[in-house]
Amino acid sequence: MLNNRKIKLSEILEKKENKGDLKNKLTILFKPENIFYLTNFWGEGITIIFEDGKNNSQTKLLVPKLEYTRAINTSKECDVISSDRGIAIINELMSLIKEDNIIFSDTNDYDIINKIQSKAGSKNLIIDNNLLYEIRQIKDPNEIDNIKNASKIIDKLFQIATNEIKKNISEEQIQSILVYEAMKLGARFPAYAYTSNPLIVASGNNASFPHAETSNKKIASGELIVIDITLCYNHYVSDATRTFALGNIPQEMKEIYEVVKLSQKKGIECIKKTSNFSDIDAVCRNAIIDKKLGDYFTHSTGHGIGLEVHEPPWIRSNFNSKIKENMTVTIEPGIYIKNKFGVRIEDSLLITKKKKDIDNNLLGFDYQNFHSFSKELLVL
Amino acid sequence: MLNNRKIKLSEILEKKENKGDLKNKLTILFKPENIFYLTNFWGEGITIIFEDGKNNSQTKLLVPKLEYTRAINTSKECDVISSDRGIAIINELMSLIKEDNIIFSDTNDYDIINKIQSKAGSKNLIIDNNLLYEIRQIKDPNEIDNIKNASKIIDKLFQIATNEIKKNISEEQIQSILVYEAMKLGARFPAYAYTSNPLIVASGNNASFPHAETSNKKIASGELIVIDITLCYNHYVSDATRTFALGNIPQEMKEIYEVVKLSQKKGIECIKKTSNFSDIDAVCRNAIIDKKLGDYFTHSTGHGIGLEVHEPPWIRSNFNSKIKENMTVTIEPGIYIKNKFGVRIEDSLLITKKKKDIDNNLLGFDYQNFHSFSKELLVL
Repeated sequence: MLNNRKIKLSEILEKKENKGDLKNKLTILFKPENIFYLTNFWGEGITIIFEDGKNNSQTKLLVPKLEYTRAINTSKECDVISSDRGIAIINELMSLIKEDNIIFSDTNDYDIINKIQSKAGSKNLIIDNNLLYEIRQIKDPNEIDNIKNASKIIDKLFQIATNEIKKNISEEQIQSILVYEAMKLGARFPAYAYTSNPLIVASGNNASFPHAETSNKKIASGELIVIDITLCYNHYVSDATRTFALGNIPQEMKEIYEVVKLSQKKGIECIKKTSNFSDIDAVCRNAIIDKKLGDYFTHSTGHGIGLEVHEPPWIRSNFNSKIKENMTVTIEPGIYIKNKFGVRIEDSLLITKKKKDIDNNLLGFDYQNFHSFSKELLVL
Repeated sequence: MLNNRKIKLSEILEKKENKGDLKNKLTILFKPENIFYLTNFWGEGITIIFEDGKNNSQTKLLVPKLEYTRAINTSKECDVISSDRGIAIINELMSLIKEDNIIFSDTNDYDIINKIQSKAGSKNLIIDNNLLYEIRQIKDPNEIDNIKNASKIIDKLFQIATNEIKKNISEEQIQSILVYEAMKLGARFPAYAYTSNPLIVASGNNASFPHAETSNKKIASGELIVIDITLCYNHYVSDATRTFALGNIPQEMKEIYEVVKLSQKKGIECIKKTSNFSDIDAVCRNAIIDKKLGDYFTHSTGHGIGLEVHEPPWIRSNFNSKIKENMTVTIEPGIYIKNKFGVRIEDSLLITKKKKDIDNNLLGFDYQNFHSFSKELLVL
């Protein structure tokens, strides 16, 4: 399995880059998600994939000493070497470079690239940050199973939330309960540097921030509560959002909920009719613009999910991104009314086989929604 | 408070860099911890500090549209501007650059630096990744209070752990309980990309990995259990470790526990006798080497804590790093016996005022241990 990924990497690289003979090459990866993708080890280290130009490929996993035995035990299809940390590990990396073409796909680091460039001399340096994503965008059955499991846990948490949401419970209290239940079900929360909250529980005015911080605010009757859960299972992320109501809510909230629900529904259905994600963004956005609410949908429509919370493909306006089988994405329109409330509805979905019409023409794609939790407005 | 930080930044820069007149300058920061440190906003964005050379300083916080209102509400002493994401935000940033000296302190990103360099033309570019850390290393009273609160929560969790550790409970079960209790006490878990577990619960052989992954392994009698908790309170991190025993453990484990305990004690006491962190590493390491166990202490002795889990100063051998008042650091020696067991004991501490002898000579520093939880071997 890991070997197939390396072969794909080599093929994509040869096809994309037009810089002479790339057979004799070496790809260097630093990010834990890429290291995991190619070696099955999740931790601190550097992965190097060597190809000698005679179809011989070799993978080395370079880790700090304290990770050596764990790397030996969990990695697959690679040789593990250890080194001291810091500059020592970069020097060890440089001592391994013999190939003519050096490829970076997950670092833009000026110092590292300069150091390796000066050591590599006249060698060909290629920096292409889309390379790994091109492969990772297309999920294999095992990856899809993990995302499916993560999604099932999220649906269970929405059910738990419906029991927990009540007057005077704080957003943080609900968050604690959901995190506890998630962890008992085997989920973990992926690292996301822009917040310290593992999930979003945002009520009332707090829900008017798309990236709300879960707070000690108590939930009151007559409010909408946005619950946005991102969690992972075996390192694979799913991401979904539901918006609940507590008690009697004003008509305006109900109406806006229905606009978002329709927007999201249209976006999902659009998968069957197009081969470009920007069309899905347009459909979701137009459903909201039609109601003169376009200014209140302040973010993009969706993103890929996988080893990261946000990864390609992107579902954005004016951003060409081809739909392909076995991609996994979110569709998540929202409307945010400043100082008042917010609504977001999000599912994670799998893109499945293209459909054909009776004349055998391709007709967009099909999909599988990873989530079955209701999208009707639940008034608790 | 934020303004003091900006003044310090300017002063340190003028002192460190010897590249002509730096009065007219602009510092660009991308990392959420630095943005928070200088604007009080934690989220996605870019912070720019302008100085016109006439002692007029101005701070701008550039955020994606979806973060605008939250940034307005939570930021202090800065102007908030919003932009679309991606290349648009970099273009917006570039349009703001008028100053002669452009300083980067938390990015090495090749593309961003190249882009800004090409726009900036003949302007002076300074990349100094230690600049912000030099200021952040020294904590103010409010920061110390937050770390103290985080530490108190960790001590409470150790107490809870002593009640929960029993035969046949899994590492993951203990982890779930501790995470739940931590969150109820207001703690959060900082992003750390190299693991998906929020804390380490490692028993038996699993404890022989310094960076163990908490697993579904069940705890057995006769084992040591390492519990390493890193959590934050108001974004400030504390980090501590205790090693517990369940039932009758072999004499070897008891002896090694005492070696680590003595090593850690000597390391802490060494604060009073030195002004360089490498001496603390040496004292901890020698206490272990004395027992012919040096090869089993496979990591450095400690690190700074603050807005990040690991930040300067570093407590490492052969790494000169001056001790200063109001630094906050961990001291955490460990011994790891492959395929058998592991022991680590870690405290987070505050460096306090230098002591003087009767002749008024400086005699190293004093300290305050943030943790009061017992370091005796607790046999549960």
